[in-house]
Amino acid sequence: MLTWLNDTLLLLNNNSSKKNIGGYTRLGFSSEEDLSIQAFITIAKQLHLKIEIDAIGNVFAKWQGSNIDLPSIAFGSHLDTVINGGAYDGVAGVLAGLGVIKQLQNMNYQPLHSIEIICFRAEESSRFGVSTTGSKAMTNLLKIDKIKDLKDTNGITVKEALERLHFNLTNIKSMNWKDRNFHSFVELHTEQGLILNLSDKEIGIVKAIASPLRLKIIIHGDANHTGTTPMNNRSDALATTAKIITFIEKKGYFFSKREHFVATASTINNYPNAMNVIPKTVELGVDIRSINKQLLNDFYQQLHNYCRMVSSQKNTQIKCIELANETPVLMNESVIERLKQACHKSNKSYCEMISGAGHDAMNMAQRWPSAMVFIPCNGVSHNPNEFTEIKNIANGIDVLTNYIKLIDYEVE
Amino acid sequence: MLTWLNDTLLLLNNNSSKKNIGGYTRLGFSSEEDLSIQAFITIAKQLHLKIEIDAIGNVFAKWQGSNIDLPSIAFGSHLDTVINGGAYDGVAGVLAGLGVIKQLQNMNYQPLHSIEIICFRAEESSRFGVSTTGSKAMTNLLKIDKIKDLKDTNGITVKEALERLHFNLTNIKSMNWKDRNFHSFVELHTEQGLILNLSDKEIGIVKAIASPLRLKIIIHGDANHTGTTPMNNRSDALATTAKIITFIEKKGYFFSKREHFVATASTINNYPNAMNVIPKTVELGVDIRSINKQLLNDFYQQLHNYCRMVSSQKNTQIKCIELANETPVLMNESVIERLKQACHKSNKSYCEMISGAGHDAMNMAQRWPSAMVFIPCNGVSHNPNEFTEIKNIANGIDVLTNYIKLIDYEVE
Repeated sequence: MLTWLNDTLLLLNNNSSKKNIGGYTRLGFSSEEDLSIQAFITIAKQLHLKIEIDAIGNVFAKWQGSNIDLPSIAFGSHLDTVINGGAYDGVAGVLAGLGVIKQLQNMNYQPLHSIEIICFRAEESSRFGVSTTGSKAMTNLLKIDKIKDLKDTNGITVKEALERLHFNLTNIKSMNWKDRNFHSFVELHTEQGLILNLSDKEIGIVKAIASPLRLKIIIHGDANHTGTTPMNNRSDALATTAKIITFIEKKGYFFSKREHFVATASTINNYPNAMNVIPKTVELGVDIRSINKQLLNDFYQQLHNYCRMVSSQKNTQIKCIELANETPVLMNESVIERLKQACHKSNKSYCEMISGAGHDAMNMAQRWPSAMVFIPCNGVSHNPNEFTEIKNIANGIDVLTNYIKLIDYEVE
Repeated sequence: MLTWLNDTLLLLNNNSSKKNIGGYTRLGFSSEEDLSIQAFITIAKQLHLKIEIDAIGNVFAKWQGSNIDLPSIAFGSHLDTVINGGAYDGVAGVLAGLGVIKQLQNMNYQPLHSIEIICFRAEESSRFGVSTTGSKAMTNLLKIDKIKDLKDTNGITVKEALERLHFNLTNIKSMNWKDRNFHSFVELHTEQGLILNLSDKEIGIVKAIASPLRLKIIIHGDANHTGTTPMNNRSDALATTAKIITFIEKKGYFFSKREHFVATASTINNYPNAMNVIPKTVELGVDIRSINKQLLNDFYQQLHNYCRMVSSQKNTQIKCIELANETPVLMNESVIERLKQACHKSNKSYCEMISGAGHDAMNMAQRWPSAMVFIPCNGVSHNPNEFTEIKNIANGIDVLTNYIKLIDYEVE
């Protein structure tokens, strides 16, 4: 089994898109993502799964159960990556889904429910700034008209990227989540943190997913000559921004002592960004996460007050735009309960935890009973060095296999 | 005279390149700069000046003196601008030179020395990161092989930009400053600051030009997931950079209380600059200026120490690269003395001052007795709103006219 997992991991990561040091770059709706999806289809067919592709390119690989009237038990994740990403983010979940079927087939298990592995398109926001695109589309949460003209760094729009892959907007708009019927959906994912690793647990069962509060803070100063404008007569947008970044880091650290909380100034664009001109305008992107909505609101309020204070102190204007402010998503209680039982049955140690990162399971949870299983990793993520051992994926597969055995023949 | 100055200012600023709010964009070696230079040549010809263009496109407009063996008395500046620049930076100096000749011709003055107005190419560093390109070339200070492959934001190299204007590297390399012979060079320029304005002086006589100490500071952290990486386990390049920016601003302000001193973090590039990735690498551009070399060195040393301290505190690596570290340039004592006398003769109030910005006069001073005359302005520079009244330029013209009268028939 471990050899099969290693080989399949390699196939899904499609060597052709790997650079020696740069990691993997398979942006959403790119030909690189498509190559990995083709690899997924090939492997699924070797397992005799039936392939279906929806209007936005999500792939469903189904192992037909003996009772075709029952809803499918679903697993899955995504195969796209950030720029210079790692080999496990998303891939581990797709691989685990295939591994569960492989393992059950090895046991000559006959499922009553069908088992489906879903490979979602374009989960990462790296290309167009939109995350979990595929799962949003199939759960009727994607505002396609709002995003269709967004451009990537090469000036290609969402619409054009879709059309290059022969998908079209009309078909995407008419997708209906009620056409599908899932008993439950479970996404396995690397933790992307060190909690499991440091506490020596084999499995994390996710209680809730923190939705990010995302802000764009725009700081306006005055462009002026760096050589001739005295230090006491400036309106420097970047110097003001530096104060805000430091506030976000310090205050975020303070909040994180109470409960899971992270705040990051992650993007910055400075204008005119010329050596001899005092910065006139800076756009700062801020990503704040917690599953405690009150904590998020408190932070937002304090950041707002600080911006007002520093703006008058530094003689600059500051505007704060909300890019996203969604409610944290709770995972399904009864699926969680079954997963815990599956851990016991598999003799795997586990703990409950929350997910700081967003995942496709967030959208699936709006329509069907959903949950997530985390496996330990080296704490590095969105980075070529992200790593988890194959045995951790195998542990997850054991738990998901026992999860199926627990529910498949259960009388509802 | 004021009407002629207003009209000529408009012509030199070539309406075609003005945008309503965006100001003027005439980058070095662009067709927009070329248009303004053509306007300069047309005006110079109307004043019966002889035009000569050197291998890099500097234009010399000469009013022949009666003794052709004497060196020329030269004035001048540049017509290129930064992106979205103003109407006076450079243009005021070219206009003043033409104005001096216009005024002397109106008086039926017969010069003994020739009087030359020089229009230098590509003074601003906005396009290729190289400043005072034209004056460097004619004073043998330009390392053309070092810069020929630098690219602008459209990927056009210095070499290609020159060739589009029919200039070539071989001819530029064989330029020899000894082919030219100047009695002296005086550049009139707007102050680009508020010292004259606030002290109610009509003229500033520049004693020295501060050469910038320019640094690129590279901060290395670890790219990681913003949602899953705890606040106490990060290596955030941007948060570290924020501390450095604040240090530069605070310490710069402190130094500026002692003597003219400015320090600016003016450019920033953040990688990968993605909403959900903790910043991995930041490149920060820093521009520091003073005519006191010791002050520059002290600042540099303290910044260096701070970077070392913050780097260990923040778990990041910091590298500091010197982009430029030149010695401040002193203006010629005897030209300064004559300019003071010319102020008295013109009944113009003046003060001595230093220039925080670099100018073509910096390079000219390496070969010929050189100085600069500042006129008051609104303190705004490299900005569409930069402004000086036409009467301020006229005051400068009066001083330069009297400067000629003082030296032209003087026995050396």
